[in-house]
Amino acid sequence: MRETSIVGAYETPHGAHKERSLRDLITEAGNGAIRDAGIDRKEIQAVYVGNYAGNEFNGQNTLGSLAATVLGLGDRPAIRLEGACASGGLAVRQAMLAVATGQYETVLALGVEKMNGLDPEKTMNIVARGQDQDFEGGYCISGPSGFALNAVRHMHEFGTTREQMAMVAEKNFYHGSLNPYAHKQRALPLERIMKAPQVSYPFGIHDVSLVTDAAAAVIITTRDKARALRPDSVRILGSGQGGDYFTIALKHSSTSFAASVRAAEEAFRMAGVDRADIDVLECHDCFTITEIINIEDLGFVEKGKGGPFTADGHTRLGGKLPVNTSGGLKAKGHPIGATGVGQVVEMTFQLRDQADKRQVKNATRAMTHVLGGPGAVSVVHILGREGA
Amino acid sequence: MRETSIVGAYETPHGAHKERSLRDLITEAGNGAIRDAGIDRKEIQAVYVGNYAGNEFNGQNTLGSLAATVLGLGDRPAIRLEGACASGGLAVRQAMLAVATGQYETVLALGVEKMNGLDPEKTMNIVARGQDQDFEGGYCISGPSGFALNAVRHMHEFGTTREQMAMVAEKNFYHGSLNPYAHKQRALPLERIMKAPQVSYPFGIHDVSLVTDAAAAVIITTRDKARALRPDSVRILGSGQGGDYFTIALKHSSTSFAASVRAAEEAFRMAGVDRADIDVLECHDCFTITEIINIEDLGFVEKGKGGPFTADGHTRLGGKLPVNTSGGLKAKGHPIGATGVGQVVEMTFQLRDQADKRQVKNATRAMTHVLGGPGAVSVVHILGREGA
Repeated sequence: MRETSIVGAYETPHGAHKERSLRDLITEAGNGAIRDAGIDRKEIQAVYVGNYAGNEFNGQNTLGSLAATVLGLGDRPAIRLEGACASGGLAVRQAMLAVATGQYETVLALGVEKMNGLDPEKTMNIVARGQDQDFEGGYCISGPSGFALNAVRHMHEFGTTREQMAMVAEKNFYHGSLNPYAHKQRALPLERIMKAPQVSYPFGIHDVSLVTDAAAAVIITTRDKARALRPDSVRILGSGQGGDYFTIALKHSSTSFAASVRAAEEAFRMAGVDRADIDVLECHDCFTITEIINIEDLGFVEKGKGGPFTADGHTRLGGKLPVNTSGGLKAKGHPIGATGVGQVVEMTFQLRDQADKRQVKNATRAMTHVLGGPGAVSVVHILGREGA
Repeated sequence: MRETSIVGAYETPHGAHKERSLRDLITEAGNGAIRDAGIDRKEIQAVYVGNYAGNEFNGQNTLGSLAATVLGLGDRPAIRLEGACASGGLAVRQAMLAVATGQYETVLALGVEKMNGLDPEKTMNIVARGQDQDFEGGYCISGPSGFALNAVRHMHEFGTTREQMAMVAEKNFYHGSLNPYAHKQRALPLERIMKAPQVSYPFGIHDVSLVTDAAAAVIITTRDKARALRPDSVRILGSGQGGDYFTIALKHSSTSFAASVRAAEEAFRMAGVDRADIDVLECHDCFTITEIINIEDLGFVEKGKGGPFTADGHTRLGGKLPVNTSGGLKAKGHPIGATGVGQVVEMTFQLRDQADKRQVKNATRAMTHVLGGPGAVSVVHILGREGA
């Protein structure tokens, strides 16, 4: 496989953009990434779009073709990829694979979701269709109640506390307060997170990710071309995709997401680097417990130690392994199809020293991780600073 | 790229299966293909699923993960691909590319759609979301009215007649009458097709594809492994994907689908064969005019000659180039996400001499073609008999 790099990255401000259309978000992100890359859009040979449910949220399906058209690339092959909350990660991965295997030279990966504007109950029903509706939807298994099962089991097995989970939220809101692209840019005191109204025990409202509108895009090309284009291109060192059972009742563990473990193994094998080489991680904190489980599953801490590792401040800016410097799904927000692409945008900013107040000093290698459905799809990427 | 082949193929009966669940259709097709291949399902390393709108039709999104789980492959990476009516073709193509580029050795491509069961107006609205809703949906552009624009322009420029279009339907209903998997298995006299109630001028109700429930699946592996498994494995000689503008008003032609032209060029280049080498074609006859335009765009007849070529009987079983021996979208039916996979199943049957009453004698090379949205996405495959 050829080596690949990111030469353009852009994301729209995240928020509840009721006044902006899907088209508008796509236009800003796609054109932003093209401008950032400094290439002629004609060099883009294919378009990969992550989107979860444009048909239900916005009455518009087939967003691969829409995005290509909106960006003046309508004559290029376009594909939409969907894997619940991992959709954006799939778009980046399929785009990277197309360049790595020589199918195309330069491609665009874009993620988009516009979730606000509907009745909140309707919105939640649409989101819940990313879980097994035949067998578990009828028993009120949705995102919050499903991940709550993981949380209570993690508490039972490892002594993880409600406070440690709240600390994930406190840290991510703090990071979000430093990110001008974040949906929520205000730090929240731990006590307020602890005392927030309950959603599904043990989750309060601040343990849960946001309902966000945004688009994000990256331009991926060969490492050779990237180096010729800009000195600060960002390498894609590794990529992995893992799967696990869609039906929660079929899973082997409630305290680990096997899909993440598998995706990370593949990505690390491809990258040929160790856990210790990763300087900053953007991972899927759809719920606070998820971030704790993620840092365990990805191999950064021993199983069961995610809570204490968080409580010790290691995942905060300035810590051993800053996690979700963007604010994560909690504060930057969770525009489903855009999330996985936006993570790569944030890490690109870090590896180009463009993360401003949230910059991790001397970051040379970064990781992104998304998790879709009830832990059914995971995509991991390992990125590296060029020449480092 | 490595050479690839199909070692397993299966499709469910097509029809209005109100009593069958999405899960049930997926189970039959996936297990059918695995059984047909004679492999252990553990050999399947990844799952690619074409589906257009399970979330709206069936309240279930993320069908990649659902299909993998239902088939006992939940721990494998799974992806859902969507490109409107070309979704199934995308699943086959991405699966093939994964094997060809060495990412995986053996994979499953599955397509599924369960469209019946809702109020028909709701069903039509869901289908229309595969067109540009911001700019054209509001002007009543849907499948029928959009393709009707192509029909009237083709009539105007080339003298194509209403009767020639009806002949496409008559032929495909005849072919469908020979196919036990078809939704409609009854031949219809030309006169009845001509006099059928109008849908959108010049289309009558029999010029339009069916609203169908079905699933189809194929197992793709390396040619080397395929030859070791069975003597009648079917080679994938070529594959191509083309794009074109999603907004009808932006297109350069009303009598040609540029996406099809591009997909065919890529597939023929890869396969290294000529038009004359193709013995049987399964193409996207979503409307009767589409089949006429397709055989022109794919290069089998000169632009404008598709009508007379059809009227002369060349596309009928026994003709120069039998087209849609399955009955096509018209008679076999159009379960959106399954259509592109089902075409490959039908052509696999032809190249294995298993097409019974609709068998094309000595067929050694076959082509499949899907077209999604308003001619925005096309996927073409060229298949060949092993050893021929």
